[in-house]
Amino acid sequence: MLKLVIGNKNYSSWSMRPWLALRANNIPFEEIFIPLYTDQADKDRILNVSRAGKVPALIDGDVTVWDSLAIIEYLAEKFPQAKLWPEDRARRAHARSISAEMHSGFMPLRNECGMNLHRPVGAIKLSEDALANVARVQEIWADCHRRYGNEGPFLFGAFGGADAMFAPVVHRFRTYAIEVKGDARHYFEAMTDNAAFQQWTREGLAETIRIERFETV
Amino acid sequence: MLKLVIGNKNYSSWSMRPWLALRANNIPFEEIFIPLYTDQADKDRILNVSRAGKVPALIDGDVTVWDSLAIIEYLAEKFPQAKLWPEDRARRAHARSISAEMHSGFMPLRNECGMNLHRPVGAIKLSEDALANVARVQEIWADCHRRYGNEGPFLFGAFGGADAMFAPVVHRFRTYAIEVKGDARHYFEAMTDNAAFQQWTREGLAETIRIERFETV
Repeated sequence: MLKLVIGNKNYSSWSMRPWLALRANNIPFEEIFIPLYTDQADKDRILNVSRAGKVPALIDGDVTVWDSLAIIEYLAEKFPQAKLWPEDRARRAHARSISAEMHSGFMPLRNECGMNLHRPVGAIKLSEDALANVARVQEIWADCHRRYGNEGPFLFGAFGGADAMFAPVVHRFRTYAIEVKGDARHYFEAMTDNAAFQQWTREGLAETIRIERFETV
Repeated sequence: MLKLVIGNKNYSSWSMRPWLALRANNIPFEEIFIPLYTDQADKDRILNVSRAGKVPALIDGDVTVWDSLAIIEYLAEKFPQAKLWPEDRARRAHARSISAEMHSGFMPLRNECGMNLHRPVGAIKLSEDALANVARVQEIWADCHRRYGNEGPFLFGAFGGADAMFAPVVHRFRTYAIEVKGDARHYFEAMTDNAAFQQWTREGLAETIRIERFETV
């Protein structure tokens, strides 16, 4: 059985991605939880799985894959029936482009609006750079909706790898009360209605959290 | 003919990656140069190619792919004979894991040691986080050398996608006089000996640079 090593569902946006790619496609896996922000023993547990020292990591027999995007590529190869990437070459290139753009960018948004499911909903003042990130994410969602919206509610129709990459941003937008406008709204609603997304959220909210780790609003 | 849109060779580590993946495999392409750090007209030229507003971007007929890693995935599919990813499934997972780790991480090293081919070689004081990045990069290189070094001088033997992802770090190490130790040294030397790497470097050094953009040492 596949083993997915993840951090706290409350905080770990990177863990959320491959977890959703698996769960939304009903691929069985065992979950191994290593809490973040604790002590050296937990850091060592992560290092014993992956020398990168980060979650998530996927263990498949004697193969260990780490980093959310590399895990999604691995799953796309191993479970072709899940169609994590679109079958059409041009669409697949589009899906990988926006996934890679998400993977390497949007630092201002990520830094200013850390994923934190327990945080009371409320707006904060965002920098110009973070606001530009918000606009760009919504442009990506709206563009996909206009192109592929007739095939399903997710970025390329059915739930896929690009959706796994963008899902944590949905939580950021919700928690920090960031308005989602126009055609991007359809995507936001499709994600919050998704059963796998809801399961992760429920389990994250059920975690005991250490309140002192909250940022001030 | 493929068109690769890139920024200044002196600065643009992200452009360097797909350029090397193409050149090192003798895949013909046309280079389209849009200078960085200039004015809105150049920014608009980039936005006209990719709404992400960043270089590099690859144009293949009516398909546009952006972001260095997505372009490498696209090239790996389009030119299987280039073997940008290893053929063995476990090795391919390893290559994608370290490529994704590079793609999304190492911010302290990137921020403190910006790629700048014209910069006079010299050390600066690095933060603890940047020093940890330096150690991790060298651990990756040394690990690959020990596992696959008998098949060739690059990370997985022949020059591939993971090498394209790590090549800019070789310039950072050189420029900021960061010592490369042990088995990692073999990789550093293989890269600096590579004809495509040398061509990029030569062309970057031939660019007119605006000296006021240099950081102080």
